[in-house]
Amino acid sequence: MSIEGTNEAPASQRIRYGMVGGGEGAFIGAVHRIAARLDDRYVLVAGALSSEAERSRRSGVALGLAPERCYGSFEEMAQKEASRADGIEAVVIVTPNHLHVPVAQVFLEAGIHVICDKPLAANLQETVGLQELASAKSCLFAVTYNYSGYPLIRHAREMVSQGELGALRVIQVEYPQDWLSEKLEDTGQKQAEWRTDPARAGGGGCLGDIGTHAFHLACFVSGLTPQSVLADLTSFVEGRLLDDNVHVLLRFAEGAKGMLWASQVAPGNENALRLRVYGEKGGLEWSQENPNVLKWSPLGEPPRLLTRGGPGLTNAAERLTRIPPGHPEGYLEGFANLYTEVAEALVAQRNGTGPSASVMFPGLEEGIAGMRFVDAVLRSSQAGGVWTSLE
Amino acid sequence: MSIEGTNEAPASQRIRYGMVGGGEGAFIGAVHRIAARLDDRYVLVAGALSSEAERSRRSGVALGLAPERCYGSFEEMAQKEASRADGIEAVVIVTPNHLHVPVAQVFLEAGIHVICDKPLAANLQETVGLQELASAKSCLFAVTYNYSGYPLIRHAREMVSQGELGALRVIQVEYPQDWLSEKLEDTGQKQAEWRTDPARAGGGGCLGDIGTHAFHLACFVSGLTPQSVLADLTSFVEGRLLDDNVHVLLRFAEGAKGMLWASQVAPGNENALRLRVYGEKGGLEWSQENPNVLKWSPLGEPPRLLTRGGPGLTNAAERLTRIPPGHPEGYLEGFANLYTEVAEALVAQRNGTGPSASVMFPGLEEGIAGMRFVDAVLRSSQAGGVWTSLE
Amino acid sequence: MSIEGTNEAPASQRIRYGMVGGGEGAFIGAVHRIAARLDDRYVLVAGALSSEAERSRRSGVALGLAPERCYGSFEEMAQKEASRADGIEAVVIVTPNHLHVPVAQVFLEAGIHVICDKPLAANLQETVGLQELASAKSCLFAVTYNYSGYPLIRHAREMVSQGELGALRVIQVEYPQDWLSEKLEDTGQKQAEWRTDPARAGGGGCLGDIGTHAFHLACFVSGLTPQSVLADLTSFVEGRLLDDNVHVLLRFAEGAKGMLWASQVAPGNENALRLRVYGEKGGLEWSQENPNVLKWSPLGEPPRLLTRGGPGLTNAAERLTRIPPGHPEGYLEGFANLYTEVAEALVAQRNGTGPSASVMFPGLEEGIAGMRFVDAVLRSSQAGGVWTSLE
Amino acid sequence: MSIEGTNEAPASQRIRYGMVGGGEGAFIGAVHRIAARLDDRYVLVAGALSSEAERSRRSGVALGLAPERCYGSFEEMAQKEASRADGIEAVVIVTPNHLHVPVAQVFLEAGIHVICDKPLAANLQETVGLQELASAKSCLFAVTYNYSGYPLIRHAREMVSQGELGALRVIQVEYPQDWLSEKLEDTGQKQAEWRTDPARAGGGGCLGDIGTHAFHLACFVSGLTPQSVLADLTSFVEGRLLDDNVHVLLRFAEGAKGMLWASQVAPGNENALRLRVYGEKGGLEWSQENPNVLKWSPLGEPPRLLTRGGPGLTNAAERLTRIPPGHPEGYLEGFANLYTEVAEALVAQRNGTGPSASVMFPGLEEGIAGMRFVDAVLRSSQAGGVWTSLE
Repeated sequence: MSIEGTNEAPASQRIRYGMVGGGEGAFIGAVHRIAARLDDRYVLVAGALSSEAERSRRSGVALGLAPERCYGSFEEMAQKEASRADGIEAVVIVTPNHLHVPVAQVFLEAGIHVICDKPLAANLQETVGLQELASAKSCLFAVTYNYSGYPLIRHAREMVSQGELGALRVIQVEYPQDWLSEKLEDTGQKQAEWRTDPARAGGGGCLGDIGTHAFHLACFVSGLTPQSVLADLTSFVEGRLLDDNVHVLLRFAEGAKGMLWASQVAPGNENALRLRVYGEKGGLEWSQENPNVLKWSPLGEPPRLLTRGGPGLTNAAERLTRIPPGHPEGYLEGFANLYTEVAEALVAQRNGTGPSASVMFPGLEEGIAGMRFVDAVLRSSQAGGVWTSLE
Repeated sequence: MSIEGTNEAPASQRIRYGMVGGGEGAFIGAVHRIAARLDDRYVLVAGALSSEAERSRRSGVALGLAPERCYGSFEEMAQKEASRADGIEAVVIVTPNHLHVPVAQVFLEAGIHVICDKPLAANLQETVGLQELASAKSCLFAVTYNYSGYPLIRHAREMVSQGELGALRVIQVEYPQDWLSEKLEDTGQKQAEWRTDPARAGGGGCLGDIGTHAFHLACFVSGLTPQSVLADLTSFVEGRLLDDNVHVLLRFAEGAKGMLWASQVAPGNENALRLRVYGEKGGLEWSQENPNVLKWSPLGEPPRLLTRGGPGLTNAAERLTRIPPGHPEGYLEGFANLYTEVAEALVAQRNGTGPSASVMFPGLEEGIAGMRFVDAVLRSSQAGGVWTSLE
Repeated sequence: MSIEGTNEAPASQRIRYGMVGGGEGAFIGAVHRIAARLDDRYVLVAGALSSEAERSRRSGVALGLAPERCYGSFEEMAQKEASRADGIEAVVIVTPNHLHVPVAQVFLEAGIHVICDKPLAANLQETVGLQELASAKSCLFAVTYNYSGYPLIRHAREMVSQGELGALRVIQVEYPQDWLSEKLEDTGQKQAEWRTDPARAGGGGCLGDIGTHAFHLACFVSGLTPQSVLADLTSFVEGRLLDDNVHVLLRFAEGAKGMLWASQVAPGNENALRLRVYGEKGGLEWSQENPNVLKWSPLGEPPRLLTRGGPGLTNAAERLTRIPPGHPEGYLEGFANLYTEVAEALVAQRNGTGPSASVMFPGLEEGIAGMRFVDAVLRSSQAGGVWTSLE
Repeated sequence: MSIEGTNEAPASQRIRYGMVGGGEGAFIGAVHRIAARLDDRYVLVAGALSSEAERSRRSGVALGLAPERCYGSFEEMAQKEASRADGIEAVVIVTPNHLHVPVAQVFLEAGIHVICDKPLAANLQETVGLQELASAKSCLFAVTYNYSGYPLIRHAREMVSQGELGALRVIQVEYPQDWLSEKLEDTGQKQAEWRTDPARAGGGGCLGDIGTHAFHLACFVSGLTPQSVLADLTSFVEGRLLDDNVHVLLRFAEGAKGMLWASQVAPGNENALRLRVYGEKGGLEWSQENPNVLKWSPLGEPPRLLTRGGPGLTNAAERLTRIPPGHPEGYLEGFANLYTEVAEALVAQRNGTGPSASVMFPGLEEGIAGMRFVDAVLRSSQAGGVWTSLE
């Protein structure tokens, strides 16, 4: 449905959306706006960008919103937008974690589709009833596990599902960072503040922030069913209220085993998300910091370097690629791919047709799986590190 | 002037622009549109997207243009837009090379700013008078040597100009590709067709297409004055009308020496633009395919890996960065940086102030320098490979 | 004590040694001989290279041994060499694991120093009394955890012990291979045969073969005291008698946490031993497959690439380096470094002086620690994956 | 002829050799001794290790030579060794360049085989008559272009000669270093002193020292016939008597083109020798600093990473490999491969048979080709940078 030779779509297909959170001083809101804008599939028309009314209005007007569509509360926004003929079709939720579910519920009730940052909730309990609500309202619900939008990740998933690796044996996934190696939350840095605050982040610190990304990526590519986890969480920085290092052993229902490491106290690591998947017939390695290369090692043959846009890729990867190989696409393009997938689905829904089979994005099921993972890891670690079922 | 914590600007600052070329079947047009859109600094409102009127209209409408602003010719577009109160402030030229100057002239005459793809012209002769015209019309003129928009390239330039490398000695720059290793132009592939056609590409094939990028990058970072070149051009693919491999020796006025290699017949290379700059006190290495790292080797000390957004960067790099280190930005973000720089300059001009000192983008001077390089290389090679002055 | 500008020592210091195992068809024996030869510190003068007398003689003569010093059994060799004035000073044991201790005991009884391949024994129980015996006989005992001989590993250890990383927090060590992804032991391949045979390898397969290397390396560099482990061992290849994948969580007495992964079923990995050590003030990363680089990331500063022989190294690394930086030294040179260290100690003992403080090689203590690790991992895994003390 | 499963040969095949140069304070002498020793194919029995008799004796005795075979001059050594029944079979010449030919002549006259460091001579003129002399005396003559001993370089050569790359088009070779970025020769550093002294190094500085290595490697792998060169030499460090940066364009008789860059003033480069070869059907890339990987890019397919000892290698590479893939072999092993090749040839000559077809090492022909290159480059550069024939 895109314009020939581009990922842009005809103007008639653009989605009107609003944003909750993401005003002045926020970080991830701007990322979502770029992601929405990149392929020209969305128009931002409303916002409750801050919980302070004046700040919300100021931020919204700066971004080009009509003043009357800059709302002081998300409840007001849901209500008023739902009643407009030109009201938003979807809401993007980019608040701290504890507001994800409350905000989503209000918009779902109003019949508005939801695109929500991860993790889905502050805790597993909150998510009860969410799927039923979305279903009852015929609303789409996307959770932005954005790393699943990288083209080579799509290709890796395709290779696994086509059986090119044979039965999987070992999954190694890791996501180390270093930005919380010191007690940054005491300096007034806003991102550090809420992400280490149990009231706003939920029970997991590093776990919820990036451990869930690693978990989702491993599941997305492998297609395996996580069965049980054993976790050892640590708060290395003195006085920190949530974990800053996550060690997890994984067992999958199909017999594969895995390790997951997430850390925010590993100096020299920026966003070193890395996935390795090994099966009977070959292995795959991918690193987020250089996402345009996928190393594919068929057993007994020299490894191949698959590149985004290069030879040997499946349509699953090609369709989410904009520019020639060797011209790196990065984090924002991968993020935009999710937005573009959601736009395809929203347009199909608008037209009363289903989206094409190739459209794919993480939704409530994946969001809840992530919360189930968080919950099991917390229970395992609190029990001293024991095997804990994910079911 | 950007919104706090983002590279977005207030809606009031958005630039109205039109595009010449870039309709169905084109490649670089979509790149320019994304680049313009990324930081939300531009609105596309008009186009002569194709030289066929019907195709131009169809492409324009799909992109959301009003039908009456989808023009059948660039001359008509210049005339009509210049007469509208809400007419375009800038035109983006993304045609084959031979139309760059003719189109630019028409819009400059109409007092409309120009953003032109590289190389500036089909040959050096065409560029005569262009600076005078732009100046007479008080028009800005940007040439999208987009690699100069990468943040770490800005940082490298800053380091050199601050003297951190000492006097420069050796510049090695290369831009190998492999996509023209076979006679792709005979298969109907449009990009290959016009880029190997002297009538549309000008006298340089690989030379104009990517050799000029390499040359500009070397000059941009080093700040050196090219003095003479010695070139050995080859068309390796039988029957090809333009060069597909470029070997050049460089001498700079300041005493430094360099090598430039560009090739479109080097299998295994996608867009492997790479710059290395060596001075008395240290060396810098950067590769476009992994642009988020700059290797800095102070003489006698261990090399450092500088990363986009990471510690130790100058403001010159920081201001063109959107997201945290370790989340790769790529080709589109670097391209967008040029657009955002131009937007800053256009807004300043609109406001009657000069742009801030830090705003920087390649303009007519750089575009003409590129054509002077092409001209000298062609003369050198045609003479059998002799030293040829660039002045 | 080396010849100026080299790692060679005067001829008078060469050590006379014999070898048990390592005859025709063996692998690691030749590696030990090269390692002994590299710096010209040893002369091979005797051998029980095979348990078949004729084969032992044939192998020995080919290597240049006098026929009467090619023994049919290690017992005979120990007895006869001990009684010669020019008898061997040290024995090198390169048999399958189950013979390490029996052979060592015989030579220790004869007052001959021992250089033994790892792991020290087939099981922990075997090692009882070995330290007392060696001590009673005033014999040196080296265990060839050869990765501790790499110069940059010495440097890393030195940095940690000097406090440059601050208190350590996280240790990630891994050693994946792929050569046992299929049932190679059924094809007659000798290395695969004995390494997967509990009777010869002991209770650990991948665990004993390479897991112990990873464990030793982590301890050697970090200087930490392992306290408890939790392990999940798997035999992925059907019918295999020993583990081929090892997942271990580590807790250290000082509060640091770690993960250890060893695998022989990870396609695309040859000998991808990799160590990462993170402390309060910085992180270190090293990979055996490119061992001439150590990445050092001081917190808040750009990472540095330390190179073997390059600027910024301590004497601990410099003294084990032979050639200029950029000329790679590899596995054999690292292995030779252990041999050269042992030679220094043996010469010092011969002279009745202690070795210089900088001489360092793994000995019985490290060998027993490795067996304690194997034992605890086996017990943990057999119990279903529970925390198990290493003490 | 090697012992099964190793590169060692039976003791009866060891070559008795002597060394000229390489005493105290030298560098490359120790490298040659290790290379000779590594596979146990040689025994050092005589030396004129220094031009000072006392120093020569002291160095020789330390290395284990009999005092009467530590000579005060190479002339005496040649004469006396030639008259001994157990005299040396080969001499290794590791003096500064200006002595290579004089020493070689004396030993050839005495009927002793020669292994000579590169470049072969101080200038082209010196080499006249050398081939005739060696031939008349039935002496082998090896020139240690050691990089041709790396297994993957052998594999690359084999691939090219088998036509896997199709007709070659472009050769890019470079060898940057940084150790002479300052005027090290003024500090008393011996290596810097003689290598920048025209009286001892000959007419080329960086050119002779490493430029010849790069040239040989390009020719060895490509099999092409160099036809003409165009050179721009520079001495960047003030007061330096010889070139420290070498820029050369190459044209080959078969139509291929190339660039060669050698530098000793490029900070951040240790011994960054790198070769890239591109043909109609694919490209090869290899870097000396990580020599265990060869990147092979068949046109239109994903690049493969070939590894030393890994899958897909020819016998040409396998036979020069000692240890499993992933255990890096380095500079000394590559150097040793040349020695082992020469030993095979010497044993074959001793036995009156020719060496096996696979034995290969650079000899006088390659040494003279290197001097012809040096000569042409010097003439080209002195003429201001003009095309100069190599024939």
